[in-house]
Amino acid sequence: MLQWIAFDADDTLWHNEILYAQAQDKLKDVLSEYIDSETVVDRLYKTEMKNLAHYGYGVKSFALSMIETAVDLTNDRITGSDIRRIMDIAKAMLASEVQLLSHVPDTIKLLSKSYDLMVITKGDLLDQQEKLARSGIREHFKYVEVVSSKTEDTYRAVLDRYGIEPQRFLMIGNSLPSDVLPVIAIGGKAVYIPYHLTWEHETVDNHQLQNNGYFELDHIGQLPSLLKQLTVQE
Amino acid sequence: MLQWIAFDADDTLWHNEILYAQAQDKLKDVLSEYIDSETVVDRLYKTEMKNLAHYGYGVKSFALSMIETAVDLTNDRITGSDIRRIMDIAKAMLASEVQLLSHVPDTIKLLSKSYDLMVITKGDLLDQQEKLARSGIREHFKYVEVVSSKTEDTYRAVLDRYGIEPQRFLMIGNSLPSDVLPVIAIGGKAVYIPYHLTWEHETVDNHQLQNNGYFELDHIGQLPSLLKQLTVQE
Repeated sequence: MLQWIAFDADDTLWHNEILYAQAQDKLKDVLSEYIDSETVVDRLYKTEMKNLAHYGYGVKSFALSMIETAVDLTNDRITGSDIRRIMDIAKAMLASEVQLLSHVPDTIKLLSKSYDLMVITKGDLLDQQEKLARSGIREHFKYVEVVSSKTEDTYRAVLDRYGIEPQRFLMIGNSLPSDVLPVIAIGGKAVYIPYHLTWEHETVDNHQLQNNGYFELDHIGQLPSLLKQLTVQE
Repeated sequence: MLQWIAFDADDTLWHNEILYAQAQDKLKDVLSEYIDSETVVDRLYKTEMKNLAHYGYGVKSFALSMIETAVDLTNDRITGSDIRRIMDIAKAMLASEVQLLSHVPDTIKLLSKSYDLMVITKGDLLDQQEKLARSGIREHFKYVEVVSSKTEDTYRAVLDRYGIEPQRFLMIGNSLPSDVLPVIAIGGKAVYIPYHLTWEHETVDNHQLQNNGYFELDHIGQLPSLLKQLTVQE
């Protein structure tokens, strides 16, 4: 009997990857007088991967990786005013309006009447809390967990902390390696809702999915009817 | 009857402010060919304060504020290689060894036998978790909470989450406004252990302390004997 439903935030509740894609376009623009845009995209990704273990996820990490990419690719010729433009890109990301995905407000409100809802998300602690506060749906979530990674251990720790049995726990998200596979592995249920943009780092080879049972939906608005089906089956 | 003891981390369990002071000295060095060091210190502090609400606490925020300060104070004349030096200052901070304060390992180990211990700290989520993992004392703490601010609401939420009654909760830390006053205000107990360096932003006017009862110790090694006295009184 399902009691807890946890949602990933970025690109599950609100648009996020689009902000990074737009920021990347602006970075290409800033660096266009120094270097071609393909090289910018390639080097930025490599810099982010190299820094991930030290910086973690989120806009501030991305900002530092953009600056590092700019310095590297221009062989230190980048100007102070171009560095300032890059910092402004990051500040605009932090200040940008929270754009909820379609069906999110209604679905969350509806589900909160029958289930205990949580958010489990990676990213900057403050940035994620601020986005949730500005989202207009904060009140429907009983707990909010900002975590530095989403592994089986992470989910086990969160469930332990609140005394939640895995079989009463359902995770919803747009990332198979972060939101789906580890939850299935510890005995929980998961719903995969793909987003049209997914960060390369967050994709997974198909063969990893064999023998793992999970649900897949086109959008979050289909969640209540999936839950009804599940209840009937029980 | 006390059951839970929570510790602040930076400058309570391990040295932290000294890292920022050293980083600031290195920044003065990088900028010495452009500007006098007093102006650097002053502007860096103002930039940090301006950015705090957007960036939050921690090394990445500090890195971005150092870069912004450098660009501002040099009127954009800062070179790419100097930007690189500033980023390296931040990376060195993240990679630096965790230096526990005197008496910390023995005291934590001893107290963990009689009490449930927690860490409640501000800062970068990943950075704080990494420092704790490298500290050698992680195993003694039942829970670790990285929070974006330490207000009465923050403490209330943490205590609620674990079902802890305030009168069974003691907070230990080096900041009166963050570790002591809000805890006293919600009915908990607090021990103030001053650190020889305290960030200007974290100091508090004396008059705010009137009528607030808390304990003050010179170092954490005195904590077990304070706890014994408290137990006798009960």
